[in-house]
Amino acid sequence: MSSIQFDPTTHPHRRHNPLTGEYVLVSPHRTKRPWQGQTEAPQASNLPQYDPKCYLCPGNERAGGAKNEPYTSTFVFENDYAAVLPPPGPGAPPAPHPLLTTEPVIGGCDVIIFHPRHDLTLARLSIPDIEKVIAQWCAVYDRRGHQEGIEYVQIFENKGSMMGCSNPHPHGQSWSLSAVPSLPSTELTNLKKYSLAQAQTSSAPTGPKGRPCLLCEYAHFEVGVPHEQGRVVFKNEHWVALVPWWAIWPFEIMLLPYKRHVPSLLSLMPEEKHSFAEALSNITKRYDNLFKCSFAYSMGIHQRPVPRRADLPPLAELEDEDNVAHLHLHFAPPLLRSATVRKFLVGFELMAEPQRDLTPEQAAQRLRGCPDVHYLDTLEAESKPVAHWCQTE
Amino acid sequence: MSSIQFDPTTHPHRRHNPLTGEYVLVSPHRTKRPWQGQTEAPQASNLPQYDPKCYLCPGNERAGGAKNEPYTSTFVFENDYAAVLPPPGPGAPPAPHPLLTTEPVIGGCDVIIFHPRHDLTLARLSIPDIEKVIAQWCAVYDRRGHQEGIEYVQIFENKGSMMGCSNPHPHGQSWSLSAVPSLPSTELTNLKKYSLAQAQTSSAPTGPKGRPCLLCEYAHFEVGVPHEQGRVVFKNEHWVALVPWWAIWPFEIMLLPYKRHVPSLLSLMPEEKHSFAEALSNITKRYDNLFKCSFAYSMGIHQRPVPRRADLPPLAELEDEDNVAHLHLHFAPPLLRSATVRKFLVGFELMAEPQRDLTPEQAAQRLRGCPDVHYLDTLEAESKPVAHWCQTE
Ligand SMILES: [Zn+2]
Ligand SMILES: [Zn+2]
Repeated sequence: MSSIQFDPTTHPHRRHNPLTGEYVLVSPHRTKRPWQGQTEAPQASNLPQYDPKCYLCPGNERAGGAKNEPYTSTFVFENDYAAVLPPPGPGAPPAPHPLLTTEPVIGGCDVIIFHPRHDLTLARLSIPDIEKVIAQWCAVYDRRGHQEGIEYVQIFENKGSMMGCSNPHPHGQSWSLSAVPSLPSTELTNLKKYSLAQAQTSSAPTGPKGRPCLLCEYAHFEVGVPHEQGRVVFKNEHWVALVPWWAIWPFEIMLLPYKRHVPSLLSLMPEEKHSFAEALSNITKRYDNLFKCSFAYSMGIHQRPVPRRADLPPLAELEDEDNVAHLHLHFAPPLLRSATVRKFLVGFELMAEPQRDLTPEQAAQRLRGCPDVHYLDTLEAESKPVAHWCQTE
Repeated sequence: MSSIQFDPTTHPHRRHNPLTGEYVLVSPHRTKRPWQGQTEAPQASNLPQYDPKCYLCPGNERAGGAKNEPYTSTFVFENDYAAVLPPPGPGAPPAPHPLLTTEPVIGGCDVIIFHPRHDLTLARLSIPDIEKVIAQWCAVYDRRGHQEGIEYVQIFENKGSMMGCSNPHPHGQSWSLSAVPSLPSTELTNLKKYSLAQAQTSSAPTGPKGRPCLLCEYAHFEVGVPHEQGRVVFKNEHWVALVPWWAIWPFEIMLLPYKRHVPSLLSLMPEEKHSFAEALSNITKRYDNLFKCSFAYSMGIHQRPVPRRADLPPLAELEDEDNVAHLHLHFAPPLLRSATVRKFLVGFELMAEPQRDLTPEQAAQRLRGCPDVHYLDTLEAESKPVAHWCQTE
């Protein structure tokens, strides 16, 4: 036994991610080293409300030749360069070697525009406007998830040029496939294992058949930790946003309902949707306020792979194995210490294991310390000139 | 059964990676879509042979205050801002919840400088100079791997500013830890499973106890495929470089010995080391020639976690479970279609599953088509002005 007392803000350590079974290496002592890496150019400033060259603005022509409707709220269309194609598809070819297997995939990819205004983001939308985005997520999940041959619907948003997304017009995507992709498949496997292996000891909500749910249990624990010491960034009546114990990205957030087991978007009650919109608004504002820029991130919604088939009897719901899924959103932002310094997942992290310097508790504290009024609104209220879209510190 | 014939260059499909158990989604029909993403600024041109401000050049002072030796070949020093620290470390703290576990980590991080010249890379080094780099990799693996408490040595190189590496001086790193990181741990688990589950059917070399080795088997199959149809980029007496069936990165390469089962760098015979240097030179030259730039990548060496303890009897070698490892190098380069257009692993790829457009067979064909004489040497031979370090097309 070592006589040194463990201090999570000083001693290198690994944390286990029970959703993926993988680890993250935490090197908290490094937060003081000088920065020698790349800085990103700040993004273009002062975006127009309408951009005639934007293929997502209302009424504009897209690259494929189709024209957007003159929409006034949200707008959904099929991606002109979809990663997967609708049926019919080919059958699986014979494997040239048992190690070399091929699985044909069919499906469809949708673009979900959040708002007609080119210059807004979730952080700048009103709560009712965010509720419309949530309604579209529900509708796409419902529609695609009931299509013949679709086994999984992945809704996500990729925001910011440093995430490879060149168009600032607020939008997300949905890819629907005939197979459950690697990461959600691993998460579902681990949720199922937890559900079967663990005996419930806490007063957390439970999943199907009264069995424990890994995420109900985890969220329940986190909201009970005194906030000054914990990882919670924001909490309201139904949702909690936290920097997970096992976070990889500097300011990674998991957003999930904590009051009851919620398998998918379609299980949300109206007041839970309202609470969801409020939480999305709150955390995206904190993100923008952190470095006074339009914060880049990838966001993904994980839930049960597809909705329950409509022809199943309602009583089967409690027995449905796919209900072990617990709805949650991952936010993976690359920014590290300013609007222009990003984290790269390369080298050791790509070849061995993700690594972080700032602890999740330190990141949560930074985010809790950010105002939940958007910095641009503060500036406007003070009648200062409108700030840049993205500024260096 | 579908009546459509599967065509790997047309139909979306998934390929399984038997080393990680994960999949990659291949969307070959998308290779013709217009590019709308970010382009990277080309890297600084015409580097000096010595840079007085470079902390890796001979005789210069580093950020930590230490001074580099006036080295004339390779040079190894302990990283001044190591991600892990030497013992003694603390014991594991009690878990605040069974889901929230902490594992203290000890170890050491080394920087391995490949050459005194600031302006060279592996692609521009002579074979004898690359052999010196290999000798240092062997020495670091041997030295660190025999240290008390070290369970894993990860040697890697992170090259290019788009990989977050700001210093072009040719160098790699080695992180040695008291734990086996997530990715190599998964690979070792799958290598062990394969070794125990499969009956050998081919004439490929075998691993310990005459049991099949996943990578011996895979490499043996790939070198037997007619090269015009296959994934082999380069092959010599002992080593093969190929774009794996399950490659994620556009021009990803796996480099490994294929003539016999080689658990680690320390098992290499002198002629295998020479052949290794030749292969490294060949593929890094092809990489640079692909887009006429100093090609960015992350490279990692996977092998048995640490060398066999010296006090074990020699006969135990064949029985040693860690010998199921088969030495291999992964090259993960982000460039997609020119020196300035990169691939981002974001959105769907971060939240669900990696995706690629170009098939591995198409990528291998492109790399086979590149000359194995470095473009800068061709230009110099033709007495043209020295080309830029990195050019746009
Ligand atoms: Zn998830
Ligand atoms: Zn490997």
